Amino acid sequence: MELQFLGTGAGQPSKQRNVASLALKLLDELNEIWLFDVGEATQHQILKTNIRLRKVTKVFISHNHGDHIFGLPGLLATRSFQGDVGPLTIYGPAGIEQFVKTALRVSRTKVSYPINFVELTEGGIICEEKGFKVYTDKLDHRVPSFGFRIVENSRPGELLMDKLAKFNIPNGPLLGKLKAGQQIVLQDGTMIDGKEYLGPARPGKIVTIIYDTRSTPSIAELAKNADVLVHESTFAGNEAKLAHAYYHSTCVEAAEVARDNGVKQLCLDHISARYLGSKAKRLEKQAKKVFPNTKLVNDFDQIIIPMKGTEK
Amino acid sequence: MELQFLGTGAGQPSKQRNVASLALKLLDELNEIWLFDVGEATQHQILKTNIRLRKVTKVFISHNHGDHIFGLPGLLATRSFQGDVGPLTIYGPAGIEQFVKTALRVSRTKVSYPINFVELTEGGIICEEKGFKVYTDKLDHRVPSFGFRIVENSRPGELLMDKLAKFNIPNGPLLGKLKAGQQIVLQDGTMIDGKEYLGPARPGKIVTIIYDTRSTPSIAELAKNADVLVHESTFAGNEAKLAHAYYHSTCVEAAEVARDNGVKQLCLDHISARYLGSKAKRLEKQAKKVFPNTKLVNDFDQIIIPMKGTEK
Ligand SMILES: [Zn+2]
Ligand SMILES: [Zn+2]
Repeated sequence: MELQFLGTGAGQPSKQRNVASLALKLLDELNEIWLFDVGEATQHQILKTNIRLRKVTKVFISHNHGDHIFGLPGLLATRSFQGDVGPLTIYGPAGIEQFVKTALRVSRTKVSYPINFVELTEGGIICEEKGFKVYTDKLDHRVPSFGFRIVENSRPGELLMDKLAKFNIPNGPLLGKLKAGQQIVLQDGTMIDGKEYLGPARPGKIVTIIYDTRSTPSIAELAKNADVLVHESTFAGNEAKLAHAYYHSTCVEAAEVARDNGVKQLCLDHISARYLGSKAKRLEKQAKKVFPNTKLVNDFDQIIIPMKGTEK
Repeated sequence: MELQFLGTGAGQPSKQRNVASLALKLLDELNEIWLFDVGEATQHQILKTNIRLRKVTKVFISHNHGDHIFGLPGLLATRSFQGDVGPLTIYGPAGIEQFVKTALRVSRTKVSYPINFVELTEGGIICEEKGFKVYTDKLDHRVPSFGFRIVENSRPGELLMDKLAKFNIPNGPLLGKLKAGQQIVLQDGTMIDGKEYLGPARPGKIVTIIYDTRSTPSIAELAKNADVLVHESTFAGNEAKLAHAYYHSTCVEAAEVARDNGVKQLCLDHISARYLGSKAKRLEKQAKKVFPNTKLVNDFDQIIIPMKGTEK
């Protein structure tokens, strides 16, 4: 499980940062990639990565501002050229379906695969399949805006080989059954229950993505114990008033969410073009004072989300 | 008067070429820039040029395929951030207004300037102002597609100083009046008519832009005597059948238009990603056999359109 940032800017593209998009690579888990927001030229950014559009099966749209959606029609059209591609589902606020359908209709784009739309209206689970659950909740932006919490189901614990050593079980199907928590009977009649020889279940990874919003209570629940929290950081720490007025967050507000909710790593995203080079580094510094494991991300940065330990 | 190519590819962006867009810079003439087609990420390409969006006053759309229009909403939104900008007019086929308005409405983009729409339906003059006329005509593509012919009004001839030498007219307002074709009276009573001392009127420049189309008769009239003809060249010379089947042109068909219609320079544009590097050069070679003054253009290429001589 890996995150790759495709656009880390705010509002409009600059030479340094493209407008918003973020890929969650679930290649080992599902052989799929999920996108979060698709600003203009996201497909151009993807050309510079190893991402294949045919593997993109889900697109989550936080809100309908242009810098978060204007790349969607072109990306959907180009995906059609990638041979035999499967269906794609778009989760987003009311309006996104009309935008996409109008763009495809006016341009006479006939995509070669089904597109499903799931309209976001309130908090809850919006997707539960293949070992993952995606939760959403309303944020506080000028327009309806949604945060996302992606939770991997927990995995069964590892087989405790030390404890089983005395039985001299040969490698093969018997061990497989134990691993799956099933019972086996040895040739001498000994019955062994796999469940008694499994370590504690390994909790799944949690990724939380918070695009455009003011500081608001719903974020805490979405971010709880996240392995990685991606949080917008449109303003510097000393500009909380401005951030509030423009329905955005400061880097320090993002860090406080991370600190107060057991987050492991914070990525500051959605950086205004006002903060260039060393000025952007200052946002990171301000946040690190509150939450040390903070990284201000740049376009094409990748974050590997490590396997969790076996703690309960 | 200058052309700058912002996207010279066909169908979808590649690492080498962006999708279609072309700027006609009328900075000396009008302090304006006109865009022809606005594929996705045209505003990103513009970031790498000296073009300022506030100077873009007109956008001409040849046809509504996605690779020619999906950059329009983002470009219009970003233009709003450029301070006090004037109105903008979009000329294009039916549907473009609905696409733009839906994109701006769904994204709640309030642009800071008026946008006028002029729907193209048939051939004729679509714009006549400030010393320029723009003609359009229908081409032959899978969807309604239009070519453009931009004609600068002719300028008065130069004052023939040799012929005037005998009068010893001092530099100053008298010469200015003669230049403007007016009559003056010298101190000794001699009457001079400026019109008799002007060289032939200098014909205005002509630029013709032919995006997606099959070879079709209406192109000839649009291209007649053009200083620069920009013509799509989606297929190689030996693929006329394929080009016809896909409603596109070959490089040789483009060259034939140039050769048969008194064109001065041909730019091959709208190059398929199938033709990379030396393969693209081959398209140029094939065309040059038919019309030597041919250039296959790349993104960011600039073509200066020279002042015409004083030939009648
Ligand atoms: Zn934003
Ligand atoms: Zn095209």
